[in-house]
Amino acid sequence: MGYAVIDSGPSELATVVSCGVVAVPREASNAERLLAIATALDLLIAEHAPRALALERLFFNKNVRTAMLVSEARGIVLLCGARAGLEIAEYTPQEVKLAVTGSGAADKRAVQRMIGLLARLERPITQDNVADAIAIALTHAQHAQLATLVAVAEGR
Amino acid sequence: MGYAVIDSGPSELATVVSCGVVAVPREASNAERLLAIATALDLLIAEHAPRALALERLFFNKNVRTAMLVSEARGIVLLCGARAGLEIAEYTPQEVKLAVTGSGAADKRAVQRMIGLLARLERPITQDNVADAIAIALTHAQHAQLATLVAVAEGR
Repeated sequence: MGYAVIDSGPSELATVVSCGVVAVPREASNAERLLAIATALDLLIAEHAPRALALERLFFNKNVRTAMLVSEARGIVLLCGARAGLEIAEYTPQEVKLAVTGSGAADKRAVQRMIGLLARLERPITQDNVADAIAIALTHAQHAQLATLVAVAEGR
Repeated sequence: MGYAVIDSGPSELATVVSCGVVAVPREASNAERLLAIATALDLLIAEHAPRALALERLFFNKNVRTAMLVSEARGIVLLCGARAGLEIAEYTPQEVKLAVTGSGAADKRAVQRMIGLLARLERPITQDNVADAIAIALTHAQHAQLATLVAVAEGR
């Protein structure tokens, strides 16, 4: 599972504070896999004290077995966020592509190029799930900024 | 989500120590729902210090949306069990019916009748998910006893 911790300012640009993949031993049982994810996430939250947690909202229509395994992990992520009292947001892959590239139909390369620019990365992120995590975090930062702007505009 | 804590002896009979449903407020978000399940389960595990945790292994082929929501909760259950260092076991509905009634095709009533006998219940359990939880727990008790018997027979 890819993750990214970003620091977003008032502009569209952001800084990637930490990103990577939660390592799960190949021989781990399903429960051990989920425990590894929870432990890693709790550590990341404790270390970086983020305000919000954003994750991908998925729609499966093909492999139900995969959907179930991914959903188990999603449950863990939601739990860790809720336990830490974080604001939780979910975005579909289309919303992420739209937010990051301006097109909901953008391909992987376009997403990678744009996150390189938005997060001012020195080197491109080639690992798909890490690039996705950064893109989702950037999407949330953008939505949160818009929400703030709307709140300001409405005099809230 | 239904749960049951049972105390199983060397015979097929068992005692239900605690059973019920994890209450989740209707207006709860998905993350709050998962948090409620985790909190309730952690409390049950702390209170009763069970040796093992058994849950239903599900195969969905119809509603993927339901499969994903159930899987998120399943992830939480597996995590709580793994965190507490419990032995974790999963049984399909067919395995549960077979273990409890002797037939993998038994209907709900047959299962309810048999758990009433096996767990020496004074009143029948009419709530489906609670009855299922008791049946799953009894199934694991039966499998664990068989495993012990096999170990004894093999001189382990």
